Amino acid sequence: MADNFADRLMAAIREKSSRVCVGIDPVWEKLPAPFAPASRAPADAGRVVDAVRQFAQQILVAVAPSCVAAKFNSAFFERLAPTGLCLLTELVSFARGLGLLTIADSKRADVGSTAEAYAQAAFGAYAAADAAAAAVAPDAVTVNPYLGSDSVLPFIRAAVARDAGVFVLVRTSNPSAAEIQDLVVEGGQPVYRRVADLVSAWGGDYLGASGYSSVGAVVGATWPRELSELRQAMPHTPFLVPGYGAQGGGAADVVGAFDAQGMGGIVSSSRGIIYCSRGQDFAQAAAQAAEDMRVEINRALGM
Amino acid sequence: MADNFADRLMAAIREKSSRVCVGIDPVWEKLPAPFAPASRAPADAGRVVDAVRQFAQQILVAVAPSCVAAKFNSAFFERLAPTGLCLLTELVSFARGLGLLTIADSKRADVGSTAEAYAQAAFGAYAAADAAAAAVAPDAVTVNPYLGSDSVLPFIRAAVARDAGVFVLVRTSNPSAAEIQDLVVEGGQPVYRRVADLVSAWGGDYLGASGYSSVGAVVGATWPRELSELRQAMPHTPFLVPGYGAQGGGAADVVGAFDAQGMGGIVSSSRGIIYCSRGQDFAQAAAQAAEDMRVEINRALGM
Repeated sequence: MADNFADRLMAAIREKSSRVCVGIDPVWEKLPAPFAPASRAPADAGRVVDAVRQFAQQILVAVAPSCVAAKFNSAFFERLAPTGLCLLTELVSFARGLGLLTIADSKRADVGSTAEAYAQAAFGAYAAADAAAAAVAPDAVTVNPYLGSDSVLPFIRAAVARDAGVFVLVRTSNPSAAEIQDLVVEGGQPVYRRVADLVSAWGGDYLGASGYSSVGAVVGATWPRELSELRQAMPHTPFLVPGYGAQGGGAADVVGAFDAQGMGGIVSSSRGIIYCSRGQDFAQAAAQAAEDMRVEINRALGM
Repeated sequence: MADNFADRLMAAIREKSSRVCVGIDPVWEKLPAPFAPASRAPADAGRVVDAVRQFAQQILVAVAPSCVAAKFNSAFFERLAPTGLCLLTELVSFARGLGLLTIADSKRADVGSTAEAYAQAAFGAYAAADAAAAAVAPDAVTVNPYLGSDSVLPFIRAAVARDAGVFVLVRTSNPSAAEIQDLVVEGGQPVYRRVADLVSAWGGDYLGASGYSSVGAVVGATWPRELSELRQAMPHTPFLVPGYGAQGGGAADVVGAFDAQGMGGIVSSSRGIIYCSRGQDFAQAAAQAAEDMRVEINRALGM
């Protein structure tokens, strides 16, 4: 990797004319028909991991032409214990080979010294002697801001040291996001706006030539008003926008995530792409769903 | 496991007359002298994991008489990729064999469907056919509340289904905790008090005979005033109190975490116990540090 993460992200969006990120969240019990034997109990862990690997690789190959990035949610890999996180690393490497940017969506957070350990885990700094580890570290990770600066800065430092990025949760896509994120604080702003201010400040030192920072924000596709409000409040912050498709967000809902040039964000869909068909045609169906999503978002942006 | 988690925790506190939880947060570069060869670069991953395993096992054996629980922070095991999380599971099993309650301190959080996957990962529900997985699941996990109810309830449901528990971050021990957790919301309360109200509500259905719930709270030892305030506001919520020792909290600081009978919480120390000596006597030194901590806290409580 050579360039600032935000610059690489914006270049990829421009080159592929795509703002689509595929979410690789494999649930082994839901694999399509060709992998059905692996989803029958009693399951054998090795066979399950093999099936998930093949499924994810075939999906990635199919959707790569329409996507700029692949996002891997750690939960679905940790669930494939004991070797699930190895598979995540393998798939990061595989996706990179297809020209995709890669995001490990693990939403980690801990106190300072422990956040450093997580950041090392995330970016492969463990065993500095092990060059292979660095080669398969993701281009970006997601983090949770509830513990404040000293829990987030270790991730940012580890990321920018290797031209990677960090996306901090600001306003999440789920129904109960409002319980804490929308609490109105003194001065009249909701908590998520204060978090947005912190994220902007954390990213201030890491702006690329594109005008965007390597420190991004996660803002759900399910909240169009907040997306537009935050785009204005955070002009240098790239957005990762989950919640498209299965969670309810559509192309019209995510327009506010982008700047006047249609840049500045990527929109993630998982179930809406990868489980589009459970039949033999699952890969073609995923390719079509990703391409439809690419076109729909571009059209909504007038592109 | 047969009983409600809170009841098992309170029984263990009473039986051992201890409120001490040892934090097993192994940093391989800092292992004591007997393991020094493993911490010389270039490190071999297998050798490092072997050294960490032996170190952690010897510490656990040494401190078990003075502790009620062992807390394993996932960060330090994820950093030992690719097999680190397997070692965490192994050590959970080992600690249980020594009569300790076990806590996986992973501070996970995600949207509803993904939180379910994390909960399955945490409590070994993957491969229901695999009875071995269930046998080594921890007695409790920690979670981050920033995403609200739908991100926390899947953990609680998975936990109580197997008589385990959940500790939700309320007021963390780190210096920048205040940035978000102390924001004052409409009505004059800080964010962490609203989180405390949510935690109390989430735990309301899971009270044991002890009067305590299987849904607990993480409140840092570094904030004595908040500890007392929250103890009063959350009379049925067990507290996990990190930040003792290396992070600055002392016995007098944690008194407020306990009820009038000296029950209701455990205090965690990691570096202050496990890295007490880097010499050949590291295990004896850890045993002494844990015992000193047990006595100091009991004395501060007048016991």
